[in-house]
Amino acid sequence: MRRLKEVQKRLKEKIGEKILKDVEKGENPYIEIPLRTLNNVVYDSKTGMLTLGGKSAKRFLFNIAHAKKFTQTLMVSAFCNQLLKENLHTSLRDMFYALKRTFPNSNENTFEEENESNAVLVDLEVALDVLREQLHLNADVRGRVVGNVVIKDGRDLINWAKLGSGGWAIPSNVEDIEFKKVDADWILCVEKNAAFERLHEDKFWQKHNCILLTTQGQPARGARRLLQRLSTEFKLPVYVATDADSFGWYIYSVIKYGSISLAHVSERLGTPTAKFLGLTISDIDEFKLHNFTIKATEQDIKRAEELMNYEWFKSKDWQRELRLMVERKIKAELEALSGRGLKFMTEVYLPTKLKEKKFLD
Amino acid sequence: MRRLKEVQKRLKEKIGEKILKDVEKGENPYIEIPLRTLNNVVYDSKTGMLTLGGKSAKRFLFNIAHAKKFTQTLMVSAFCNQLLKENLHTSLRDMFYALKRTFPNSNENTFEEENESNAVLVDLEVALDVLREQLHLNADVRGRVVGNVVIKDGRDLINWAKLGSGGWAIPSNVEDIEFKKVDADWILCVEKNAAFERLHEDKFWQKHNCILLTTQGQPARGARRLLQRLSTEFKLPVYVATDADSFGWYIYSVIKYGSISLAHVSERLGTPTAKFLGLTISDIDEFKLHNFTIKATEQDIKRAEELMNYEWFKSKDWQRELRLMVERKIKAELEALSGRGLKFMTEVYLPTKLKEKKFLD
Repeated sequence: MRRLKEVQKRLKEKIGEKILKDVEKGENPYIEIPLRTLNNVVYDSKTGMLTLGGKSAKRFLFNIAHAKKFTQTLMVSAFCNQLLKENLHTSLRDMFYALKRTFPNSNENTFEEENESNAVLVDLEVALDVLREQLHLNADVRGRVVGNVVIKDGRDLINWAKLGSGGWAIPSNVEDIEFKKVDADWILCVEKNAAFERLHEDKFWQKHNCILLTTQGQPARGARRLLQRLSTEFKLPVYVATDADSFGWYIYSVIKYGSISLAHVSERLGTPTAKFLGLTISDIDEFKLHNFTIKATEQDIKRAEELMNYEWFKSKDWQRELRLMVERKIKAELEALSGRGLKFMTEVYLPTKLKEKKFLD
Repeated sequence: MRRLKEVQKRLKEKIGEKILKDVEKGENPYIEIPLRTLNNVVYDSKTGMLTLGGKSAKRFLFNIAHAKKFTQTLMVSAFCNQLLKENLHTSLRDMFYALKRTFPNSNENTFEEENESNAVLVDLEVALDVLREQLHLNADVRGRVVGNVVIKDGRDLINWAKLGSGGWAIPSNVEDIEFKKVDADWILCVEKNAAFERLHEDKFWQKHNCILLTTQGQPARGARRLLQRLSTEFKLPVYVATDADSFGWYIYSVIKYGSISLAHVSERLGTPTAKFLGLTISDIDEFKLHNFTIKATEQDIKRAEELMNYEWFKSKDWQRELRLMVERKIKAELEALSGRGLKFMTEVYLPTKLKEKKFLD
């Protein structure tokens, strides 16, 4: 479903021709958009992902409350259609400017703020069941990767093993990259660039035959999609290492299950087989990190309590770790491992966790 | 001065042996650190850079007010010495954890917060006249680059022209990369990744034989150092394109002159020959962007007024642009150019500015 033509076909059939038919039949033209409100977001325990339920809403042209949104939806559809036709890519912000204007003979603007055009684009993603990237709208970029992998991106053959200390900058759109060679047994995804750089320098990925990737904080869509593609297309296990705090654990959960605000794309951005490798609060005892913990803030505690209530954090192990955090009111960063020596993460912590299979699921 | 041995020599002579001599002479051991307070930061109109003046302070061991800072300075020095000896690199955060402990028989910690060890490291940078990266402490990473350039990073030969849509992820430390081939006439540095991706897709750097780099917002040290090295080692003119607002213009000024907080490293991070290519408030008239401007906030205006007072924004052109912003209370983003069409920046805006040499200096 990454093919350009298939996306163009959906745009044409579900939007253009659909509206045309309504008009020809003399009916009030409408577009049907699945609802993305919280009461239509469900955790599917079978697939292990956050997805949308079955509710949807109709957006009519001849309805004072709908007319503007209807028009905006057609404008965004036409814009995407143009991008696909000319094979151009751009950002959400650029799309906003490209579509912003004043309706003739009025004081009304097509779009006042970028969040209006962004919301309409997400509607379109859901309605057509495609990714924003397949409509050629690029998201934020963040994330770097190294490993024994050769990809084809456009005309370029890129060897992730030969990009020096920087690695490959994961672009916002990885829909069209082809994997030419993937010689790795698993993927290690670390939250922070500092950990990535240390592991890269210590040649961790060579010694352990893995792909090493950093999300550089909250994972951008490009990094999530890349993880998902590698894990499904090559059956590679994914292990995630973050700080031992609510923010880090939520990053793991976004990689694995998807996020609430993007539940409609979990299937293509989520990696339900991902496992959590660390850090945990238990690790603080086990690896003697007591001197290197940080006092958890009120907000950390509150967030941990929220996580405890999420269905997808209900396993015994996660409940224990979350409870430990709430009780002991501490957290720890990946960098805390350097308290035990700069190579402690590479030579002791990760190998021990991997050997003893101490993963959280 | 990028050689490891030279940095080790300075650490040894200016810190280790210096202290040892004081001790042997029976004197109160001290380290001399140039002051980094605002009253010791000067704008040097000859070199066109912010630099440190001649004031400095002595840090003594036997002085209740100095003893802890003195000890911290020696701890950080010893840590850096170890990094250089083992040829390891790490982050500021990791260094903090590696050095954090409680002094024996006391309740006093070596370092309470990371900003303490960071400040000591900057002291050391200044005292030894080296870069943090030369002491093997990596900074934040941000920034991507493409162009007809081949570099050697470690054992890897990397061709910036063949890295697909992502480009090369600029690492935090570019001290040791070697330029093997640089086939470009100039460098275009854009603030935003969205602009970088559009220009890259439109093959701007191939058509105009330039290196294309994005800082992705506030420039990280790696990106600044890379620009500086390319511009000095290959005499390449640097042109900077940012949003037309105080934040964007300050980014330009940091690339060109250095920043107040890092004035001691301007010489190695600043690119005084850099010129500003756009956006300006005048561009809004000239390129008919009126429909795509944003109302400037109180803070934007205040910041623009501050910039007007900086010595390095005193040129007639800059004063005019800053005044226009304050008077008209508007700003504009690079993405606003998309209001005139997605390829407007590539095909009209940049070529026109370059042809008419409409640069600000």
